[in-house]
Amino acid sequence: MKYYSYEEFARDTNKLIQKVKDFQPDAIIGIARGGLTLSHAVAEGLNIREVQTIRTELYDEATKRSCITIHNTVTLSEIKKVLVLDDIADSGDTLKAVMDSLVCGNLEVEFKSATLFYKHSSIFEPDIWINEATDWIDFFWERQFKPL
Amino acid sequence: MKYYSYEEFARDTNKLIQKVKDFQPDAIIGIARGGLTLSHAVAEGLNIREVQTIRTELYDEATKRSCITIHNTVTLSEIKKVLVLDDIADSGDTLKAVMDSLVCGNLEVEFKSATLFYKHSSIFEPDIWINEATDWIDFFWERQFKPL
Repeated sequence: MKYYSYEEFARDTNKLIQKVKDFQPDAIIGIARGGLTLSHAVAEGLNIREVQTIRTELYDEATKRSCITIHNTVTLSEIKKVLVLDDIADSGDTLKAVMDSLVCGNLEVEFKSATLFYKHSSIFEPDIWINEATDWIDFFWERQFKPL
Repeated sequence: MKYYSYEEFARDTNKLIQKVKDFQPDAIIGIARGGLTLSHAVAEGLNIREVQTIRTELYDEATKRSCITIHNTVTLSEIKKVLVLDDIADSGDTLKAVMDSLVCGNLEVEFKSATLFYKHSSIFEPDIWINEATDWIDFFWERQFKPL
């Protein structure tokens, strides 16, 4: 298990901003919850006001196939280029489902995906990723916030 | 101008979590961009998976009245209690417009609002706020993220 601190997040997020800036997205879609803090930071760094979020739900079925439901529709009228952000491409199921749904539903929009972490076993490789995850990542937002 | 660091944010967010936990919200609505990092942290702290976000746009009109447009619709079916989060109630225009719109559009849902900062001159006082802002607040997310 690797603890991932705010300081590491800030450093990596600036690397990510550097890598995506030439794409010049005019909107960000963050995948909740893991992609929310990243989406905020990247939106500030690239001065993008158009931030939308979607939430997915993974239903583990009795069968081998699991079903991903995507909640919260996005509205991309007048949007040309969208950056989709999540913390990690782990199994890749979520990100693949989200990207498929977004691309198929908005054929005139260009999408790129980016994550802080990517696992080699993921079924989906983001266009941009910063670190390879070889261990379970314990993100600071999963540790530092609790009721007393 | 007061710089507001990640460490101060983490401490205050835990105070906020403590104050809202008895409300037991089943969903969080974050106001983009300022409320995004806070929404992520509170959602983790209270173990709420249902996070939605809305974005507002303030059109300064030639007239004295300014117009606020609310983007991104939220879907609150089967939701009973919603916590609405933003970083600051400054003029209060945004939060008031958002709360009016949410409450009027979802009469069967109970809403509470919470912010990290509140200015006494705000036209809207959140149900819960942590600090009074007497100065311009320079949030860490507005400073730490930039392209090289």
